Amino acid sequence: MQVHIELKKVVDNSYDITIDRLPKIHFDTKVAVVTNKTVAALHLEYLLSNISAKELHVITLKDGEEYKNQESVNAILDSLFEHRFNRKSMLIAFGGGVIGDMTGFAASIYQRGIDFIQIPTTLLSQVDASVGGKTGMNNKYGKNLVGAFHQPRAVYIDPYFLTTLPKREFGAGVAEIVKMAVTFNKDFFEFLENADLHNAQILQETIKRAVETKANVVAQDEKEHGLRAALNYGHTFGHVIENETKYKQFLHGEAVAIGMVMAN
Amino acid sequence: MQVHIELKKVVDNSYDITIDRLPKIHFDTKVAVVTNKTVAALHLEYLLSNISAKELHVITLKDGEEYKNQESVNAILDSLFEHRFNRKSMLIAFGGGVIGDMTGFAASIYQRGIDFIQIPTTLLSQVDASVGGKTGMNNKYGKNLVGAFHQPRAVYIDPYFLTTLPKREFGAGVAEIVKMAVTFNKDFFEFLENADLHNAQILQETIKRAVETKANVVAQDEKEHGLRAALNYGHTFGHVIENETKYKQFLHGEAVAIGMVMAN
Repeated sequence: MQVHIELKKVVDNSYDITIDRLPKIHFDTKVAVVTNKTVAALHLEYLLSNISAKELHVITLKDGEEYKNQESVNAILDSLFEHRFNRKSMLIAFGGGVIGDMTGFAASIYQRGIDFIQIPTTLLSQVDASVGGKTGMNNKYGKNLVGAFHQPRAVYIDPYFLTTLPKREFGAGVAEIVKMAVTFNKDFFEFLENADLHNAQILQETIKRAVETKANVVAQDEKEHGLRAALNYGHTFGHVIENETKYKQFLHGEAVAIGMVMAN
Repeated sequence: MQVHIELKKVVDNSYDITIDRLPKIHFDTKVAVVTNKTVAALHLEYLLSNISAKELHVITLKDGEEYKNQESVNAILDSLFEHRFNRKSMLIAFGGGVIGDMTGFAASIYQRGIDFIQIPTTLLSQVDASVGGKTGMNNKYGKNLVGAFHQPRAVYIDPYFLTTLPKREFGAGVAEIVKMAVTFNKDFFEFLENADLHNAQILQETIKRAVETKANVVAQDEKEHGLRAALNYGHTFGHVIENETKYKQFLHGEAVAIGMVMAN
């Protein structure tokens, strides 16, 4: 005999990405800001002057791809348990892609899933990690091999954070933007050829177009069955390069840029 | 400026539960059977005589609620990485609720999610863990506090496995069945009052009705926002009892039975 379990239904994970100075936000729940030491030293005060919550905690991790591991994810989870976060509590990922991926992953498995929002502080994470819902961590076998698809409730991209971003990191973000334009959007690529990214307005427009380009791809293929795999252009070699150099020599965007050349 | 990320769509996680002798099944992918020493000693040979795959591995964990932890989940994941499982590979949970929960959780986070099927071998896991998609593990803060909602692709309930189930474990399963009948289904409760569960046909019918009752609740409330919380009848006290006695003194169903009395 057989029992059919009917679980077909409409799921709405839609959300908005705001590209502007950070608005004032109040949360009527417990909130934990997950960040790293570098970002905290530069921008935590600014963040905390804009957000308030029923109860607000800050979890500060070490900075770097080499800390994108189970110990860091456990540090986030442990802090949530210590402060008795429940299923209505909220996480805020405040940092680059490493912080975003780990915070999203912790949110996806804490009590089987709680909400999180992203406030990305690097150009790369603003245009890349903020769209797509990919979360995860590295392990000894490679990058992002353990994780989940977990969409944020909202993303706030404040270009102001980029004023303190090291030149090399800025360039790594530009590499990812170029990748998206080359792969999916000819108009955007032509726009980029003459764009002065040091002009605040043009930078904001560039971020918006990059986000729209990626959003368009992800909307068609949320779980990476086909089209979305094209976003991995440069990533196969890139991951190998990062892994072989133990994430110490190249930034992610740099490794992807080298990977694109190798793939060509 | 704002970009709207549109992710509203129809998701179909429906699946079938077969309550019968195990059919012959062939998988055209890599498959890992996750089980424990007790179940493997009793039934692995029977299982392997019924399933075949492109490549078949067996992961055997220690038996017991006290091993439902990160080390065991990592042992599953590591084995999948060692055997180079990809996103099309498949896990089979072969054991009780502990094996089912950890296997489902490992499947949900391995490369951001792969498929799994359940072949539950205890009465409790056949009627309870096989419906609902709850997966997870315990940690020092309590039971099932880290996990995910991840639906199996199929469930095969073979009552034959119950012939070797210790009396106490059988009773723990009956406690959960009674809980479901009392809470949601008067007809089923009246059926149970005169049911001889040692009769194979009546046992099969009982399992079917229990599964249908739970399925009905879960279909209305997949992520436990309201109605489904009623399934936790007896579980609040039950979890405390299990935690305080370090999962050694009582079986889950026994703790739930005591918890129901306490809640009354």
